Formats: sequence, structure tokens, C-alpha cells
Amino acid sequence: MTFTEQWHSTVIKKNSILCVGIDPPEMQNKAEWCINIIKSVAPYAAAIKINRNFIHDLSRKETQQIVQSIHASGMLAISDNKIGDIGSTNEASFHHGAIEGFDAITVSPFPGNIAESVQNAHKNNLGIFILVLMSNPEFTVIKNALIDGKKAWRYFVEQSQAAGADGIVVGAPSEKNKNIDEIMSIKSQQLILVPGIGTQGGDVKALIECFGDRIIANVGRSIFNAQDPAAEAKKYNDMLNASRI
Amino acid sequence: MTFTEQWHSTVIKKNSILCVGIDPPEMQNKAEWCINIIKSVAPYAAAIKINRNFIHDLSRKETQQIVQSIHASGMLAISDNKIGDIGSTNEASFHHGAIEGFDAITVSPFPGNIAESVQNAHKNNLGIFILVLMSNPEFTVIKNALIDGKKAWRYFVEQSQAAGADGIVVGAPSEKNKNIDEIMSIKSQQLILVPGIGTQGGDVKALIECFGDRIIANVGRSIFNAQDPAAEAKKYNDMLNASRI
Repeated sequence: MTFTEQWHSTVIKKNSILCVGIDPPEMQNKAEWCINIIKSVAPYAAAIKINRNFIHDLSRKETQQIVQSIHASGMLAISDNKIGDIGSTNEASFHHGAIEGFDAITVSPFPGNIAESVQNAHKNNLGIFILVLMSNPEFTVIKNALIDGKKAWRYFVEQSQAAGADGIVVGAPSEKNKNIDEIMSIKSQQLILVPGIGTQGGDVKALIECFGDRIIANVGRSIFNAQDPAAEAKKYNDMLNASRI
Repeated sequence: MTFTEQWHSTVIKKNSILCVGIDPPEMQNKAEWCINIIKSVAPYAAAIKINRNFIHDLSRKETQQIVQSIHASGMLAISDNKIGDIGSTNEASFHHGAIEGFDAITVSPFPGNIAESVQNAHKNNLGIFILVLMSNPEFTVIKNALIDGKKAWRYFVEQSQAAGADGIVVGAPSEKNKNIDEIMSIKSQQLILVPGIGTQGGDVKALIECFGDRIIANVGRSIFNAQDPAAEAKKYNDMLNASRI
């Protein structure tokens, strides 16, 4: 079963397109803290995204325990690595991700090797998401860089689709970044992982109406920093479901 | 003392501009294996670069033991993360790198936030190297992408220098990638970390003649996969020193 198939069947089972992004702060018992959040939000979410930058201190066993708890709660596990290296070096990260049990991994297109990365990820039975559009203001120069006379971010989308990547990553549109028209113009039929959905989440509505259950709506801090992560996850899931057909 | 100052004083002390890149394979006792290589090459090298893709399984304690052994042998420790995220997320990696004891870290310019990354790395007392030129053939489209009418890789070099990054990363020139003229045209006064130096290493000669001890000459597989890593490190160091003034 491909990651895309797993996603759609999980969405039906959970009645949710919510992905909870977890960026654990520096602490003792980090794995336990992650697992508590995971168990709390499980009734309302279809996936958990763990950002690799925040778990460099965890041993493989601890990372495996986190992933096992995600699967035990019927959710999918995404490793947010944004890896951007070449050949065998990227493959090392795919290998680790697979051993840890993740279902998919995120990759940066910076080295230009999208096709190679998709092949290597799939060889390791991992779904792969290519980072194409970030929401920080400094990304503007990169997204508008010209590759073969085409805007770079659009080139990355096309390469991702041509290579058979399971999905792309696009930062949530907001008042600040005004990415909404660009995202709405994407013709690809892939999944779209959307991090950066905050307390408002207004613009995600339009994305869900346009792309349906291909949107993986990632909410991070607003849920994992909440006093009651379960209540917050429920609130977001209800909000997202109100926009689904 | 800045990383650049640390580099130049280590180069004098060790009479070496060799950096040994270590990509540990999947194994039991990975930290011990790394430490053995580190001790073997220590008489002939000024720095060790550990690629983060290969050590996702290590606990913080194990990573700290590796870094301690690098320092105990009088070398500098570079964490090759190629991190490419934004704000507080990149900062998490800098924070981990600092706690692990690394002296410097590598960063991808993909999110466009070079200035922010330099600030955050330095706040964590880490030197920072920006990836500007990769040696894989697929990188050609990225390096030639146009940003403000300028080739992207050159834009990244200029941004790195303007932001006060300690160095840049450029893949070693070879028969295949023909990067030599581009690298030789770099006007920046920063350090230049050059991975991808193989058994031939011919073209590094020209780089050393041009940039002197600002070249951090990284040799990986040829040394750590050798039957006698110490002898191989000595061979490379002698070769590199023959090109130094």
C-alpha cells in the first residue's frame, strides 16, 4: 500500500485530515512527553509529524517507541527531516527513518536530486514529501528564482510530480506570506502537507475546499503547547471537518 | 575566539588542513567505531566532520563522547547537518549541536534565511558554514537558477559573507562537475569547506594555491573505509601540505 493509499484510508477511519506536528522542547523524558501528546490527540488526528531538529538527543529505541505509539493509536508517522544531501547520504536518513518505523519523510529539493530521493525513499518503503513552498518571508527570493525561465517553486512541484513523490510541503497561507494564490494554482494530484496552521487557520478552509482530503493539515504549537492538547486537537479537527465535503 | 580563529590556530598546531569526514555505517558500537577512527587520524588532521544523516540512532551521550574524543585529540568538530528550516526550528538544531559540543555546523540556504541562521548559530557559540555549491550533476539547475538576475550559488556566497558566516561549503571540483572556475572566482574571505575529495584530489591543489589555509579539505570514505585510516590520513595530509606555501 502506498503512503497516499494509507493516508486516505486513515482519513476515513479517523474522520480527520489533522496532522499534529510535535517539536519537543529540551527536557528529561522527552520520549514520554511525546507519547503522552500522541495518546491525547489520537482520537482527532490522522497523522503525527515529528521534527527531526528537536530529537537529535533521542536514541533509536526512544524514537522507535514514539513511532510505535503513533501506530498503536491508528495514525501515520511522518519524519520531518527536510534532508538535503546527495545519494548515499540521503539514503542513510531514509534507512534510519525506515528502521525507526516512520511511514513518510520530508526532503528539501536544494541538491536538485528529487528523482533520486523519491527512488531511494520508496526503496526503503517510505512515502516522500518534497518541500516546495515555505511560508517565511525570506523564502520569497528562493521561490521566485528562475529555473529554465520558470519560478523555482513551480519547477519543484513539477519535478516532484514527475518523479512520483507522494506529496509536497507548502507552508500555510497567511496574512503575512500571501501564498494562497500560488498554492491554489497547483495542478499536481499529490498529497499536500501544510504546516504552519495556527490559531486562526482561516486560509486552510479555501485549500480544503480546493484539494479536499489531499490536504494534510498540520497544527503544531497550538496543540502541543495547549493546556489540554486533546481538546485543542478536537477543536481543530471539527474546524477542518467543517470545510470538508 | 571565533571558529575561524580556532581553525587557523589548529592548522598551525597540527600542520594540517585535513578534515576527516566520518559517515558511520549501520553497526553495533557505532560511537566506539567513530572514536577509533578519530584517534587513528588525529596526528594528521585538524578537524572531524560528522554527517548527521548517519547518526540518527545515537543518544546525546554517545554523540557527546564522539565530540569529546575529537577535542581530546586537539581537533575541531563540525556537525554536517545541512539544516534547512526556519527560525526556532533551526535554532533547535543549533542548541543540540552546542550541547553536544560541536564547534561548527552546516546549513542549507534553501529557506532564504542565511542572516537569521548566522545570528542563531553564533548566539549558540557555533561556527556556521553555508552550503553554496554541491558537486552532484543534478545541482546544475539549482546553482544556475537566477536570483535578482544573479546565479543562485553566487547569491548564496554573497549572502553568507554579508551575514558574517564563518565559511561556505563547496563540493570538490572534479572531471565530472567542472566547478573549478566557479570556485576560483569566489571573492569571499571566508573559510571554504570542501567535501568530496577522493583518491585523486588533483583539483584541490589549485584551490589550496588560491585560498591557502582557508581551505578545509574534507576527505571521507577514502580514509574511514581504508584498512589503515591513519596511514591514509597521513598520505592525504602530506599531499595537501605539498600544495601549501
